[in-house]
Amino acid sequence: MKPATIIVALPVTDLDRTLRFYREGLGVETSDIDGGMIVIELPNLSLFLMDVREYAAYTDRIGPHVVAAPTPGACMFSCAIGTRGEVDETLAGAERAGGSIPGPAREADGGYMGYVSDPDGHVWELVCNETTAAAAG
Amino acid sequence: MKPATIIVALPVTDLDRTLRFYREGLGVETSDIDGGMIVIELPNLSLFLMDVREYAAYTDRIGPHVVAAPTPGACMFSCAIGTRGEVDETLAGAERAGGSIPGPAREADGGYMGYVSDPDGHVWELVCNETTAAAAG
Repeated sequence: MKPATIIVALPVTDLDRTLRFYREGLGVETSDIDGGMIVIELPNLSLFLMDVREYAAYTDRIGPHVVAAPTPGACMFSCAIGTRGEVDETLAGAERAGGSIPGPAREADGGYMGYVSDPDGHVWELVCNETTAAAAG
Repeated sequence: MKPATIIVALPVTDLDRTLRFYREGLGVETSDIDGGMIVIELPNLSLFLMDVREYAAYTDRIGPHVVAAPTPGACMFSCAIGTRGEVDETLAGAERAGGSIPGPAREADGGYMGYVSDPDGHVWELVCNETTAAAAG
């Protein structure tokens, strides 16, 4: 297949809480809540955060083996961040806005890495790595 | 935060099986298996399919509440496909290569939609919708 574009959809349990986390916490531009979902357009990612009932309308078509509930750790969004300061600031803001962080960012795998889970447990990895940043640019 | 780019990472249990599904089944260009993962670059999606042990090396940093196992339905990749024929062909090829489909594509929500789960249950939605295609283009 040669898709024209791809959207990643995730189920969330409380759209208001999710909106606050992404907008005020991660500090990304988001749509308002509309049609049971929040739309976020990021570099190389179109993300639909969907109310679980809205999401289930799709996954019900797939079969009973499909969970259709937020699952911590089931996928991870790894973001290339320009500076260490931006990693730290993002983690702090995300925690204040209802995210969960396991601790401060630290050196790992040759980069400066921090983690935050959104209110439903979806994991965001924030990486400041000059090699990666150069490759992306 | 203003990420330069974002990668979506998913855990998989058998990289050889996964490679066959994505390369021969969905028919997308993939890397070879390297460093415990398969890299796929698609329009608006950079996807890392990671061996669960490799994936766990990241998620272990987040905490014990994180599952780090493939979870059917936990996220969904919705692809805008140009023609109904391409939807049908992709579903058929994906099933032959180890994917699971709930049935043939059909009309829904004003589009022609089909679903396939990869060998670990990650869900792909294939949508042929002239309105969406025009918006994406």
